[in-house]
Amino acid sequence: MSSPTATLLISCPDQQGLVAKFANFIYANGGNIIHADQHTDFAAGLFLTRLEWQLAGFNLPREFIAPAFNAIAQPLNAKWELHFSDTVPRIAIWVSKQDHCLFDLIWRHRAKEFTAEIPLIISNHLQLQEVAEQFCIDYHHIPVNKDNKLEQEVKQLELLRQYKIDLVVLAKYMQILSADFIAKFPQIINIHHSFLPAFVGANPYQKAFERGVKIIGATAHYVTSDLDAGPIIEQDVVRVSHRDEVEDLIRKGKDLERIVLARAVRSHLQNRVLVYGNRTVVFE
Amino acid sequence: MSSPTATLLISCPDQQGLVAKFANFIYANGGNIIHADQHTDFAAGLFLTRLEWQLAGFNLPREFIAPAFNAIAQPLNAKWELHFSDTVPRIAIWVSKQDHCLFDLIWRHRAKEFTAEIPLIISNHLQLQEVAEQFCIDYHHIPVNKDNKLEQEVKQLELLRQYKIDLVVLAKYMQILSADFIAKFPQIINIHHSFLPAFVGANPYQKAFERGVKIIGATAHYVTSDLDAGPIIEQDVVRVSHRDEVEDLIRKGKDLERIVLARAVRSHLQNRVLVYGNRTVVFE
Amino acid sequence: MSSPTATLLISCPDQQGLVAKFANFIYANGGNIIHADQHTDFAAGLFLTRLEWQLAGFNLPREFIAPAFNAIAQPLNAKWELHFSDTVPRIAIWVSKQDHCLFDLIWRHRAKEFTAEIPLIISNHLQLQEVAEQFCIDYHHIPVNKDNKLEQEVKQLELLRQYKIDLVVLAKYMQILSADFIAKFPQIINIHHSFLPAFVGANPYQKAFERGVKIIGATAHYVTSDLDAGPIIEQDVVRVSHRDEVEDLIRKGKDLERIVLARAVRSHLQNRVLVYGNRTVVFE
Amino acid sequence: MSSPTATLLISCPDQQGLVAKFANFIYANGGNIIHADQHTDFAAGLFLTRLEWQLAGFNLPREFIAPAFNAIAQPLNAKWELHFSDTVPRIAIWVSKQDHCLFDLIWRHRAKEFTAEIPLIISNHLQLQEVAEQFCIDYHHIPVNKDNKLEQEVKQLELLRQYKIDLVVLAKYMQILSADFIAKFPQIINIHHSFLPAFVGANPYQKAFERGVKIIGATAHYVTSDLDAGPIIEQDVVRVSHRDEVEDLIRKGKDLERIVLARAVRSHLQNRVLVYGNRTVVFE
Repeated sequence: MSSPTATLLISCPDQQGLVAKFANFIYANGGNIIHADQHTDFAAGLFLTRLEWQLAGFNLPREFIAPAFNAIAQPLNAKWELHFSDTVPRIAIWVSKQDHCLFDLIWRHRAKEFTAEIPLIISNHLQLQEVAEQFCIDYHHIPVNKDNKLEQEVKQLELLRQYKIDLVVLAKYMQILSADFIAKFPQIINIHHSFLPAFVGANPYQKAFERGVKIIGATAHYVTSDLDAGPIIEQDVVRVSHRDEVEDLIRKGKDLERIVLARAVRSHLQNRVLVYGNRTVVFE
Repeated sequence: MSSPTATLLISCPDQQGLVAKFANFIYANGGNIIHADQHTDFAAGLFLTRLEWQLAGFNLPREFIAPAFNAIAQPLNAKWELHFSDTVPRIAIWVSKQDHCLFDLIWRHRAKEFTAEIPLIISNHLQLQEVAEQFCIDYHHIPVNKDNKLEQEVKQLELLRQYKIDLVVLAKYMQILSADFIAKFPQIINIHHSFLPAFVGANPYQKAFERGVKIIGATAHYVTSDLDAGPIIEQDVVRVSHRDEVEDLIRKGKDLERIVLARAVRSHLQNRVLVYGNRTVVFE
Repeated sequence: MSSPTATLLISCPDQQGLVAKFANFIYANGGNIIHADQHTDFAAGLFLTRLEWQLAGFNLPREFIAPAFNAIAQPLNAKWELHFSDTVPRIAIWVSKQDHCLFDLIWRHRAKEFTAEIPLIISNHLQLQEVAEQFCIDYHHIPVNKDNKLEQEVKQLELLRQYKIDLVVLAKYMQILSADFIAKFPQIINIHHSFLPAFVGANPYQKAFERGVKIIGATAHYVTSDLDAGPIIEQDVVRVSHRDEVEDLIRKGKDLERIVLARAVRSHLQNRVLVYGNRTVVFE
Repeated sequence: MSSPTATLLISCPDQQGLVAKFANFIYANGGNIIHADQHTDFAAGLFLTRLEWQLAGFNLPREFIAPAFNAIAQPLNAKWELHFSDTVPRIAIWVSKQDHCLFDLIWRHRAKEFTAEIPLIISNHLQLQEVAEQFCIDYHHIPVNKDNKLEQEVKQLELLRQYKIDLVVLAKYMQILSADFIAKFPQIINIHHSFLPAFVGANPYQKAFERGVKIIGATAHYVTSDLDAGPIIEQDVVRVSHRDEVEDLIRKGKDLERIVLARAVRSHLQNRVLVYGNRTVVFE
């Protein structure tokens, strides 16, 4: 599938004929749909769909697709996004001291699992600067504490602008972002090291050990101003037993965190995640 | 979703405009699509779709839907099936001596997980007659051995005809059906007690024990004349260890068999399984 | 392993030589250990072990085993339980209106997965009386509401005494027992329909749906006066998606509940569960 | 647990008193057992155990432990190994062109998940030389084809000797070793990219796709002269669907391969794997 494609992500009050209307828009303009998926949330009265079609042979020039589709979408009160597969998103990875998610994201990027560029790493510590250098990625050390958080966020936002970042991935960043920051830059994916909503907040592995659970998990979610309560993109779990001490939970959890975060980032980059309310549809 | 629906399962050589064409057929006749799912097998050049819409408000009377759709399907060389949700399929459960899948299917039927009737149990043994009586289901004892298989299959086919059976579920029947039988009654789901294609044939738990695997599985598949090689509908697995003896594998496997078989039967009854080649698409 | 065995479950402040001391007690009396498992919780400074040996050839008569072992255990400040495999425990199953766990427990009992007797079902509703009759188990209808709970608990305790019950299994009983009841009859296993500690309390599937989780779970635990906070014996999970509505979560959850509850009951009946603090060791 | 420990792995014809005898050996010499686990394979009449104790306070000097234990083991016809936790094993990683397992093993080594040294990488290709240099590990390029295999194996064995290698990890090496090589260096762990015994041999993901399985797996095993039939150490699986093409199976499989291989290597390095017949006991 190397030729470029366009993808529409649409959410719309449910009504008759939506599948036909959206498919017709593409067909009438000579487009060849290669993926179409839809979901109706009957309780919410909402129709959600993802349509991907080949740009080769499509009669509308790229710059006219959005206005043309808008003419269809507006009367339906639809919200929508349009993406092109050859527009490569730019990711900033934010880390603290732990390297497992960072290494994993970099490896997947090299292995071409992600269609993205990773030009920037931001950290409140110095430990992972060496890894950044090893892989030739710019590393900015911006120490954060209670007193300087807001001014440091100004610097962080400036870096995101400067590097033209589309997505921030909190790869074990371990710091809370201000509501103001999130409002200004809402495209943020975080990995939380528990099976949310269990063990919200700090030290989830310690809490899991104390509670004596038989399974631990990890959760990737979009960041909202409500801590650990943003829309969940992906979760996974692994079985543990009484033989596992806290350090074993941490070790086993790292494998979960790496995989869950990577799946979420990949789904996001492929424009397969549609957020509505506090929920996500992840089209497969 | 209590009002009746129609479902089309379509497989068709891939070409431009198929999503629009099929959706338009329903929309143009006033139908409200409640589920639409499609899949393109690019290697096979095949487009596969499932469309379900509400019959309330649909302008075409039921008996005209098939001929009207055929006019669209034929030029596209599409194969298709049409189902109505208020046509309740009739299941015959075939068993041998083990009761776990039988009990489970009966319980799910009572719990309304299956929209189906279960009027008939066929067995080559007498052990489960009591269960059949307990739940007021007709039980026919048809002993089978090498010598009488073909003549007994005549009786079995006659029973299927007499009870107007749509689907045979081999719930640990442990006998091989002749190619001739399968040709005459092809709608058969079997549960195999291994993670196919591992451990084809008899005694898979014994073989799994001897091989020292760390995970065992179960597989539900449509029956074809090629033993244990039919299209797979569903599989699942469970972890085992050196502590599990063959009897533990059997016990753990029973839980798998029950769940895997039930999921496959449910998907089939909801017309969510589309077979092509030796593969299935299971629309979710 | 049909010959009778004795099992010791021991928890003891950790110190040198415990494995040898306990093994010697059995060996010196001519016993053949068939299962030995131990665990040290280094944080708690606690040694926990399960020893099972064949009674055939053991020199100590049954009635002398406890006093003889006590002479070893007391100087070590060990807590311990002694069980004989041919003492068949008696279970009371408590239900409300849902039948899936009840059916499952009864089926496993018939299939000899449990070495136990099930002479008694208690319910606050009448719906499952028919099931009880079908399988010839006494059914006592004890309706419970806010006002009569304490007096009804007196009746319930009286029934447990009368039927010589060793273990109460709350198979979706949906009522909270008083602290006083639990103090008087502490051997109670409950199945909670969530991945505890997520979604404590009522309506966990509704809450899971609202939170938009991608995995749901079930938890079997011993009942304590602190609601849903008792020691966890077993948990398991299943993947869900945006396509699953609340009723799908309930249906998928039922399969989890059945299996998780059954595993917990089986481990308990085989004297493989050792509680300490609010945690369990489940010896495999 | 930073103080050094000794570990005995013992397999022995089953008889009365083995737990006591082995525990007494350690206790009598002043040792403090921190892990003890045993398993009886009743079918094989074999008792298998792993005992780990602290060397601090143990009365026997290290060099006398083996002869002293031999005096106990010989009359019992026991096979045994003795390991010390501060003897750091040396690993050679063998690769071909794929880097995911190599990267993962290196990351885990850096993260101290493995107590081992990795001084040597051997490959039949040049692609991963850069990775080796990045992490300062010696890389030897030894191209292998049908004609030169035996002479190249001489070089490979010489390297293993020169680097004092204890364990070879085939991290997607994709070449078959001769029976002679395996006889001379039997400590080899391989990762096979299927759920063995399904899809033995080449191209398992292609075969899995063609068979239409709903779950794929990976298997880590000791290498024997019988291809893909050696004792299994660890397996794991992941769910796939009709939407996954061969390249998706490969991508999903890589995550499995990394985790399954790492778990197997870790268990081996901690002396928790005991091979008997063609099976393993993995003590947890």
